[in-house]
Amino acid sequence: MSKLREECGVFGIWDPDGRCADTTYYGLVALQHRGQEGCGIAVNLNREISHYKDVGLVNEVFNEEILRKLPGNMAVGHVRYSTAGGSLRENVQPLVLRYVKGSLALSHNGNIVNTAELRKQLEKNGAIFQTTADTEIIAYLIAKERLNTSSIEGAVKNVMKMLKGAFSLIVMSPNKLIAVRDPWGFRPLCMGKRGNAVVFASESCAFDSIDARFERNLEPGEIVVLEDGNIRTDKELCGKYKSSLCIFEHIYFSRPDSFVDGQVVHDARKRAGALLAEQSQTEADIVVGVPDSGLSAAAGYAEYSGLPNEMGFIKNKYIGRTFIKPKQSSREIAVKMKLNVLKSAVDGKRVIMVDDSIVRGTTSGRIVKMLREAGAVEVHVKISAPPFTWPCFFGTDIPSRDELIANHKTIDEIASAIGADSLDYLSIENLHKIAPDSKCSFCDACFTGDYPVNVKHLL
Amino acid sequence: MSKLREECGVFGIWDPDGRCADTTYYGLVALQHRGQEGCGIAVNLNREISHYKDVGLVNEVFNEEILRKLPGNMAVGHVRYSTAGGSLRENVQPLVLRYVKGSLALSHNGNIVNTAELRKQLEKNGAIFQTTADTEIIAYLIAKERLNTSSIEGAVKNVMKMLKGAFSLIVMSPNKLIAVRDPWGFRPLCMGKRGNAVVFASESCAFDSIDARFERNLEPGEIVVLEDGNIRTDKELCGKYKSSLCIFEHIYFSRPDSFVDGQVVHDARKRAGALLAEQSQTEADIVVGVPDSGLSAAAGYAEYSGLPNEMGFIKNKYIGRTFIKPKQSSREIAVKMKLNVLKSAVDGKRVIMVDDSIVRGTTSGRIVKMLREAGAVEVHVKISAPPFTWPCFFGTDIPSRDELIANHKTIDEIASAIGADSLDYLSIENLHKIAPDSKCSFCDACFTGDYPVNVKHLL
Amino acid sequence: MSKLREECGVFGIWDPDGRCADTTYYGLVALQHRGQEGCGIAVNLNREISHYKDVGLVNEVFNEEILRKLPGNMAVGHVRYSTAGGSLRENVQPLVLRYVKGSLALSHNGNIVNTAELRKQLEKNGAIFQTTADTEIIAYLIAKERLNTSSIEGAVKNVMKMLKGAFSLIVMSPNKLIAVRDPWGFRPLCMGKRGNAVVFASESCAFDSIDARFERNLEPGEIVVLEDGNIRTDKELCGKYKSSLCIFEHIYFSRPDSFVDGQVVHDARKRAGALLAEQSQTEADIVVGVPDSGLSAAAGYAEYSGLPNEMGFIKNKYIGRTFIKPKQSSREIAVKMKLNVLKSAVDGKRVIMVDDSIVRGTTSGRIVKMLREAGAVEVHVKISAPPFTWPCFFGTDIPSRDELIANHKTIDEIASAIGADSLDYLSIENLHKIAPDSKCSFCDACFTGDYPVNVKHLL
Amino acid sequence: MSKLREECGVFGIWDPDGRCADTTYYGLVALQHRGQEGCGIAVNLNREISHYKDVGLVNEVFNEEILRKLPGNMAVGHVRYSTAGGSLRENVQPLVLRYVKGSLALSHNGNIVNTAELRKQLEKNGAIFQTTADTEIIAYLIAKERLNTSSIEGAVKNVMKMLKGAFSLIVMSPNKLIAVRDPWGFRPLCMGKRGNAVVFASESCAFDSIDARFERNLEPGEIVVLEDGNIRTDKELCGKYKSSLCIFEHIYFSRPDSFVDGQVVHDARKRAGALLAEQSQTEADIVVGVPDSGLSAAAGYAEYSGLPNEMGFIKNKYIGRTFIKPKQSSREIAVKMKLNVLKSAVDGKRVIMVDDSIVRGTTSGRIVKMLREAGAVEVHVKISAPPFTWPCFFGTDIPSRDELIANHKTIDEIASAIGADSLDYLSIENLHKIAPDSKCSFCDACFTGDYPVNVKHLL
Repeated sequence: MSKLREECGVFGIWDPDGRCADTTYYGLVALQHRGQEGCGIAVNLNREISHYKDVGLVNEVFNEEILRKLPGNMAVGHVRYSTAGGSLRENVQPLVLRYVKGSLALSHNGNIVNTAELRKQLEKNGAIFQTTADTEIIAYLIAKERLNTSSIEGAVKNVMKMLKGAFSLIVMSPNKLIAVRDPWGFRPLCMGKRGNAVVFASESCAFDSIDARFERNLEPGEIVVLEDGNIRTDKELCGKYKSSLCIFEHIYFSRPDSFVDGQVVHDARKRAGALLAEQSQTEADIVVGVPDSGLSAAAGYAEYSGLPNEMGFIKNKYIGRTFIKPKQSSREIAVKMKLNVLKSAVDGKRVIMVDDSIVRGTTSGRIVKMLREAGAVEVHVKISAPPFTWPCFFGTDIPSRDELIANHKTIDEIASAIGADSLDYLSIENLHKIAPDSKCSFCDACFTGDYPVNVKHLL
Repeated sequence: MSKLREECGVFGIWDPDGRCADTTYYGLVALQHRGQEGCGIAVNLNREISHYKDVGLVNEVFNEEILRKLPGNMAVGHVRYSTAGGSLRENVQPLVLRYVKGSLALSHNGNIVNTAELRKQLEKNGAIFQTTADTEIIAYLIAKERLNTSSIEGAVKNVMKMLKGAFSLIVMSPNKLIAVRDPWGFRPLCMGKRGNAVVFASESCAFDSIDARFERNLEPGEIVVLEDGNIRTDKELCGKYKSSLCIFEHIYFSRPDSFVDGQVVHDARKRAGALLAEQSQTEADIVVGVPDSGLSAAAGYAEYSGLPNEMGFIKNKYIGRTFIKPKQSSREIAVKMKLNVLKSAVDGKRVIMVDDSIVRGTTSGRIVKMLREAGAVEVHVKISAPPFTWPCFFGTDIPSRDELIANHKTIDEIASAIGADSLDYLSIENLHKIAPDSKCSFCDACFTGDYPVNVKHLL
Repeated sequence: MSKLREECGVFGIWDPDGRCADTTYYGLVALQHRGQEGCGIAVNLNREISHYKDVGLVNEVFNEEILRKLPGNMAVGHVRYSTAGGSLRENVQPLVLRYVKGSLALSHNGNIVNTAELRKQLEKNGAIFQTTADTEIIAYLIAKERLNTSSIEGAVKNVMKMLKGAFSLIVMSPNKLIAVRDPWGFRPLCMGKRGNAVVFASESCAFDSIDARFERNLEPGEIVVLEDGNIRTDKELCGKYKSSLCIFEHIYFSRPDSFVDGQVVHDARKRAGALLAEQSQTEADIVVGVPDSGLSAAAGYAEYSGLPNEMGFIKNKYIGRTFIKPKQSSREIAVKMKLNVLKSAVDGKRVIMVDDSIVRGTTSGRIVKMLREAGAVEVHVKISAPPFTWPCFFGTDIPSRDELIANHKTIDEIASAIGADSLDYLSIENLHKIAPDSKCSFCDACFTGDYPVNVKHLL
Repeated sequence: MSKLREECGVFGIWDPDGRCADTTYYGLVALQHRGQEGCGIAVNLNREISHYKDVGLVNEVFNEEILRKLPGNMAVGHVRYSTAGGSLRENVQPLVLRYVKGSLALSHNGNIVNTAELRKQLEKNGAIFQTTADTEIIAYLIAKERLNTSSIEGAVKNVMKMLKGAFSLIVMSPNKLIAVRDPWGFRPLCMGKRGNAVVFASESCAFDSIDARFERNLEPGEIVVLEDGNIRTDKELCGKYKSSLCIFEHIYFSRPDSFVDGQVVHDARKRAGALLAEQSQTEADIVVGVPDSGLSAAAGYAEYSGLPNEMGFIKNKYIGRTFIKPKQSSREIAVKMKLNVLKSAVDGKRVIMVDDSIVRGTTSGRIVKMLREAGAVEVHVKISAPPFTWPCFFGTDIPSRDELIANHKTIDEIASAIGADSLDYLSIENLHKIAPDSKCSFCDACFTGDYPVNVKHLL
């Protein structure tokens, strides 16, 4: 079941009561949906940074003994997304390093588009790179800037000006914890409090899980510096560019219970569903959402259309990373293992099937087929986003344009390819209506090719 | 989040095309919700039985290499429930043994109530026991009976007459695969087909996952013998007792997409919800189900009451077995880690919260509290089953009567203890209406103390 | 490097100061050379027996947490030899079971030759077997005998009379620790003390490692019962048969520092070497022993002959169980990896190479070749035992007669096959002179076919 | 049993026939004694470098699947020594990086003494450091030099001029394999051939294990460049300093079968033993070496003195990294677990006990005590090196001067502290006689404080 994957979630905490590694552990578990390849925690105890990281899920990598060996009253954490390919243990974050002013730990969510140029420049000055991650380039730039800047936050700000692309960044120096969101605001980042403690996380759901109170989202371009419990904020770079929050955070990436730039994700998804229902009235008996990401939109569709919202699928929650995939001959079983149709719910029904995206079309085709085999007499597919037609350079692994079905087929052809009686995508116009409470405007480049940053050299 | 746990799921297959270990693997993954402590597969190749089993989830215990080393055209599999206590690796099933007629493998779901007596009798004849499982007693009895019986199925039938309690059993001998359901029918068991292959499983959801066709449920007391592809059935013991399917299979244990004795589980749950709504009209704004088991009943409640069915909770699906539980001081966080309230859905609302059971009351109390903290102005708790007041001796780990809150408090007191504005349980009368399509009547002893089998010696 | 393997080592302890699992752990580490496949420890705390066992080395299977969960003031332990084949986790010992009188744990070293008959008899009475180990048969017989015998030790004694073959056995009942050695004394067993604690072990080296004092070897046929700190001994079965200690315990199996039936193993090996030197005076410059088992005999050869005893080989001690063996094409490298010749020691020399056995001849041939490549001008091979020509049924995995090179070739032909300038084996006559201090006479059946017990049905 | 530890072994290969990862695996297993903390292999396939490394022994870290994923016809490998402290996974080598000219892999054995200065300079130019290893500094310097140098080997040579201290280095660039030995020759490095393949290794024993032919040791200061199968050597830096091979390579670090700068290690050790015997004629009955490192010297002592060389100790070879060390109260058992005295060999004897060093005195004291308990009437300790009195800065973890017993006590006092009847160390004068065939002179700073490189800033 090929789904898009997000690159990473970040977490940071300053807590005078200590036990920061434990809190970060719980925060990362709540952010696990943003990355399942690897994870790590770096702590700061009396200006000394120590860390532990590895490939695997948070509750696989860490155990009580490891957490006990990470005392500190500052910490940064990171979860990294799961790649198909081999072990890239070196790329697991936080990146921990020593530079002219001591130690530094960085957690980064996003993707920079001018890395090639930056890397070349650094290499021309003798830099060596041990990872393939952008984070290392950012670290280098900070280290260099720090040479001529009187503070670490000053250096970070200078670097922000050099970077083109997405970066929600948490930097831990011997004395400070610095949270940074790129001036476009591609990726979310928010701040919370728990007693005297201050926390940062990619999504607010991480605060709920540690009993912290959500304070606010960082503004695109904002720098928050935490030192000795004092919070300073620098908004000089805010408003430099038109805000461009990745709209796929609302459609798919973020957890429904997260609050992203003023907008509850679940509500945005419901609204997308409602807009789909408004867009084209399709005669049908029931609405079913494809778990888990299609469920909110299905609820919105059902509510608007007045059709019953049925639980059409049961998901097997025990299919872990080591699950043995069935051989070629029985690929279809792989989908059935993960998702079973509730026959009694769909048998004899005209079904509205709501999902968030179609990438290559294969998985959608299998799900439609399952519905029909279970007795659905019609299957109308509603996608809570427009068709993918462009690659993403800001941290999402949308495959190459060649692989995107919407670049080769008309909507009718796609409907036919996946065996649907009809197919509708959310229109671009409606897409921009799904998050009325959002304080940010959106990047919709994967649907429009309209990139907020120059990416011509990458296309 | 203390939940009841079922003891085990069983699977069996005869397939002339071989690869039975692979198919059993996929079947067990689909049955994983019935037991997460351990699992195993025994295969039969040319009358030789080999096996592999261990503690852990199916996709942790098995890998491709292990499956490759288990060739055969018959197999039995087993998943075992997760106990809190130490390693009981010896108890993992299938039980594989040699006896006077060769090899034997047994997978057993259920619990026998006259084991003490049977064990004593066997020990008086010199038996030794290497596990604490009932299955070993059953194996012994079969081995003994086989001495004076002309066939293995004859021995199995004789043993069935000696056993009091729950047993859905799959027995693999050198030549035969035998599926047996106790005469009360406490635990489900069904048969399916795929091409020439015949399969047995605790629940029909296992057939969907391997692309097999559901044929039928075994009747209480039925013995099905598979030999050289021929199916023989022996119903002599059918109807000996009043059928007593565990009603909690419908309320909680079985997967919603399973078809148990003629009744789709999801539909029974929805009906339980509808009956709750009918039972007492509570003024409210929305209905929310507690994931995952409360969701179907919530749908039924909403449908009947006309109230909107909202997604009130987001469940973290990444909390694995090795998750580090928060320390005493912060137990409440443990619930929050697993379940987060969707604030925007419940804020300012009068909420109907639907769940399937209250055991000790602690977890329910935490969930109610979470709803209130998220802004719910009223919380009315609806339980889709009657109050637990009696222990179960047929394979469910309902705690001792002392621990069951319903034995100490009135319903009003429980409501107050869990902080609910009101609390309603499904009435016993309505309980028996939830599964109108069921071919079996039910055991409701955990609610009524009315045990289908004499258990006085155990109370 | 194919070497013979011994089946198992046993350990038992009664210690009023507790921590018996820890002491057993250290004892088993000292006995690890007797078996590397698996190991286990069972403890007895207030009549309750709990245990832990698994495949792997002692320091792989156990860790501090596991040992902490095994409190008790009695314990039995076991190490099991490494088989080439698949996982036989079920066979790992101690065997722990419940029977008519409560719990029982057994550790067994040896092999019974009338198992087929005993098993058949038990099966005819309805017994079921879950392992392929003799130990389970012994357990059954004890359980049966106990029904008509007033004490566990009485039952054990009755069973001893039924068993033909090798068994050094430690039995732990709720109240007693019983050590038993078969009437032939095939396998060693000894008793020691440490303060108030009493310990049993296959070899005395286990006592040194736990700071216990060697007391004495058990006599063939002796039963020692430990109850509440009191030692009772029953010698009724002593002297029933001619004592038949496996002479290969002295030549190869036991650790050189062990004291077996009055004889220090290292001294027996040195004597074997001296007798070899006496047997045939070979002109040579140096003596080299093949590590580790040939080193003692080489020392004896050198001492008697007056030739210098050179360190001719360096053994790589880092080749663990998971070592990847080189592919077919480069098998010779496998030997070189494990054993490297010290060129400077052998270059230009006429070498006496001392080893304990030649099984198939392949390994010996490779070692001779290595010596020649390192510059040895002559290589004379001296084997500190006679040629293997018969299988062993008492716990040693000597391969089938077909595979034994000495059954196909004359000594000259073997010399030629392994590339030696000459080859001499210890004569049978001299073999019986190597252990002058031994209180036991020996089983030499693998060299003579003269079995102390009837094994015709197995040949 | 506290022993000194060496920092690392290196391996490199160019083989047109491929399978370089496999060969490196076998080479590293042979070098495992030089480091047990971690290991890694980097391969070069068509100018692309990929790698795998982790903490653990070579046969724990690698398996067939991992090796299969490392195709290439050049490779470098590394084994790293075992530190007491926590996981330093980042420090495991080879270091693999990208720089201005592409990829680079480095394996380094040794320790640089002017790192602080070099690091500071690099940091002042904006460098960031992700490890605590010198290797990263070397890599940086090479990358920087490469900017103004026309070849990688030119850059390496420039860097060699900047480095003070020990470095045997293997560098793999997209096209070349470069082996470098520091101008002092602190650590060994040698070259071998197998067919068309060329190999480099810290010690010649690695060649034997892969069936390669030893060609020669690299000279101190030599650079060997391998490109397309052609070998170029650059000796410009040879003879720049007085050669200073670490004499402890002969006494303890290197494997006895290695050939280090013209001298067989075993022979040097035997000679050290002989010189000890010559130094002071002690009346005694037998000589025993402390395994494994004291065995060669004991042989030399015995040969010179005419006393019999007895196997006095049996070492337990099954004590792995996960061995649970006995608690404080029973520390002495830890030594006994690892080393048992062969009582019959020493009972009633005046014993010459030969070992290679005394660090804190604790272990030596325990061994002497064990000999006495086993009946030795006199114990005369002979150390095949002078007393440690100075720290090492070139890759050996000799503890601080405070911890070295020879800095606090006279020889008589040490003898008394360890319970010896007499104690003799090899004299400095004789130390320099142990390796007559050596083409290098030696660094003996740990005994004399006479450092070949300025280390005042570190003392």
